[in-house]
Amino acid sequence: MELELVTVGTELLLGHTVDTNAAEIAEAVAAIGVRLTRRTTIGDDGAAIADAVSAALDRAGTVIVTGGLGPTRDDVTKRAVAGLYGAPLELDRAYLADLEHRFARFRRGSMPESNRCQAEIPRGASRIPNPRGTAQGLVLDGALGTAVLLPGVPHEMRAMLRDSVVPLLAQRLDASAAAARIVRSLTLRTTGITESGLADALAPVEQKLDGVTLAYLPGWDGVDLRLTTVASDATEADHLLQMAASALEPSLGDRCYGRNEEDLAAVILRSLRAIGWTLATAESCTGGLVGGRLTAVPGASLTYLGGVVAYANASKVRDLDVPKDLLDRHGAVSEAVAAAMAAGAARRFGTDAAVAVTGVAGPEGDTPEKPVGTVWLAARAGGYDRTACVRFPGARDEVRHRSVQAVLDLLRGLLGRAADRPPAI
Amino acid sequence: MELELVTVGTELLLGHTVDTNAAEIAEAVAAIGVRLTRRTTIGDDGAAIADAVSAALDRAGTVIVTGGLGPTRDDVTKRAVAGLYGAPLELDRAYLADLEHRFARFRRGSMPESNRCQAEIPRGASRIPNPRGTAQGLVLDGALGTAVLLPGVPHEMRAMLRDSVVPLLAQRLDASAAAARIVRSLTLRTTGITESGLADALAPVEQKLDGVTLAYLPGWDGVDLRLTTVASDATEADHLLQMAASALEPSLGDRCYGRNEEDLAAVILRSLRAIGWTLATAESCTGGLVGGRLTAVPGASLTYLGGVVAYANASKVRDLDVPKDLLDRHGAVSEAVAAAMAAGAARRFGTDAAVAVTGVAGPEGDTPEKPVGTVWLAARAGGYDRTACVRFPGARDEVRHRSVQAVLDLLRGLLGRAADRPPAI
Repeated sequence: MELELVTVGTELLLGHTVDTNAAEIAEAVAAIGVRLTRRTTIGDDGAAIADAVSAALDRAGTVIVTGGLGPTRDDVTKRAVAGLYGAPLELDRAYLADLEHRFARFRRGSMPESNRCQAEIPRGASRIPNPRGTAQGLVLDGALGTAVLLPGVPHEMRAMLRDSVVPLLAQRLDASAAAARIVRSLTLRTTGITESGLADALAPVEQKLDGVTLAYLPGWDGVDLRLTTVASDATEADHLLQMAASALEPSLGDRCYGRNEEDLAAVILRSLRAIGWTLATAESCTGGLVGGRLTAVPGASLTYLGGVVAYANASKVRDLDVPKDLLDRHGAVSEAVAAAMAAGAARRFGTDAAVAVTGVAGPEGDTPEKPVGTVWLAARAGGYDRTACVRFPGARDEVRHRSVQAVLDLLRGLLGRAADRPPAI
Repeated sequence: MELELVTVGTELLLGHTVDTNAAEIAEAVAAIGVRLTRRTTIGDDGAAIADAVSAALDRAGTVIVTGGLGPTRDDVTKRAVAGLYGAPLELDRAYLADLEHRFARFRRGSMPESNRCQAEIPRGASRIPNPRGTAQGLVLDGALGTAVLLPGVPHEMRAMLRDSVVPLLAQRLDASAAAARIVRSLTLRTTGITESGLADALAPVEQKLDGVTLAYLPGWDGVDLRLTTVASDATEADHLLQMAASALEPSLGDRCYGRNEEDLAAVILRSLRAIGWTLATAESCTGGLVGGRLTAVPGASLTYLGGVVAYANASKVRDLDVPKDLLDRHGAVSEAVAAAMAAGAARRFGTDAAVAVTGVAGPEGDTPEKPVGTVWLAARAGGYDRTACVRFPGARDEVRHRSVQAVLDLLRGLLGRAADRPPAI
């Protein structure tokens, strides 16, 4: 089954809005074996919408259209597509009553006249309920093919896609199951190694991957390796992916910390929890981002007790017991101070493990010896210590983001080691 | 001048990658008065690429194509577009030498044979240099119109767009200057008021906006109001936008905290710095995100001294001097504890101002009286205190993100007040 996507919105053509709906729809339909063959974006212009939808139906037979279903003058999608199908718009009295009720309940006032047009539907179209907004979705069937209209507001679109559109497409797909090609992916997440370093390490194995493609996706958290395969059923596809992942993993060594959506912070919290250890943080240049990242994981409070954002040097001395003469002798961005911060956090919070970050995030504060991007990291677990100095590329945002990932990875390495031995303290 | 964009990549149709290039190109060309009328995305399929590019040239006369210029089998854009123009591919010996030199220098090895095809260019095409990668850009001119080919890697594309493509389009535009229409925007940033609340407040003024359109863009940080206008020159456009902004601002009251890219954290740090005050943070459910947000602003260290992530209750007592009986009597998520955390942070760090957050971010930890999303905020400045209880929608991420913005906004309100009077302490 082939499908095209038409997204409507002058905002999208002005570049004010990144079209995240398109990627979400693409991923959702690929997962049930529907092949998205083209995406088109056009402005709020009835003639252009009709032209694009008509061409898409010609080529693929099925089209999803998002956007342009709101109550304002700019919202012209419904009228344009109804025109293509020769279907006059008719007032749906039941939905009008729903709308009026909704306004009375949530908005404490009567419904604006402009919303009335949202209760008009093309003759013969079926409705897709929208629990989160006033623009209902529509399905038009006819000799031209099938057109599905959805609102452009991401959280409204997302719920309708999941609850109504994907089930509808899956049902129609069953009828033409012979043509179904399931696309499945599996991601191996790595950190602390460059894309070319990975490519070298994987070169011998990569050639032997059978029916699985490998994409390198570098980002601030590391390089993700996406394995993708196409098969006639999901079980076969998943088997191919598992085989490929098992073939690659030995070459990745300890650089691979997880699969798919797995986050390094979640991996660390799980490791600590498994051995009953607790964690504290001491942050300077990251200003709280390490704590923020850890506490993004639900249930972090079982393991993470808290931390100090010691942005000023006085706080490093007062709140983390960093000896003042260490600061004077080595400066705040130094191995000695990073290690003292981690030790201070562990002592103060009474935790088994701690991490610390101190660096030059830029754009100011650099010196010839410590240029922007110089960051000292420290990790401590069960009495073992590890420190590292890194020099990150990029501007302030990138340096801070990479520092968070790097200090978590430093702790991960230490946990692998510490878990094998009894604590030294 | 009209332009269409064709982005090439099977990854884009599988939804693995969000098409950020499209928005960047759209914004860059709108700023010089080129009107982007359509975007099309297709897979790595030569026939489909030729079809889409040909249709785009028919409609608009100029097309930018991104992606599919790499060295692998999947990269078929150049061949497909050259075919449309009837231009055979010819080996560019000078560029081949460049490529070989680049490989010798950076990659410490000889150039793979697969990269050789990147030195072939369609006869008559001009080259666009790519300082960051091996795929050069190309411009094809002919009876069909103009096609500009760029690589799909975002940081390569971005540099070539800025340094070569925009100047090229601007130059061609001068020749047809009569048709130039400059699109300019101005954003008013609001927080602490809903979209419908804003719409009500602005309704009387909105009708009087002359030649300026108004878009409501709700997000977790608040609702941005984007004013957009089209004019024949930039000065006129900016004048129209300033007039419209001045007309709207009185109706926004203190809900508007800035314009365009201005961040609330930067606004607060600037206000504090202007009166010579310092700031500390005390965070529970946000786990460091308030500190992280403040320290994202360059130069934050002049004003922000640090904070405590008091995730465990023991840390609230030990590190922020919250009386234990307050925790026992009211619970950690309470007005009394939030206020005590802010006071404790100000005292401990010796600052003039402080903010505190304690809440139920979910998905666990809720009670019937304190459901997920319940957050107590406190701000303190110059001896004045303010607290607020909010109940945010959404999941853990959204609750935490909205909490950061809300506590900064609480402090903003207090600063407006405190700055008018002498400190009470």
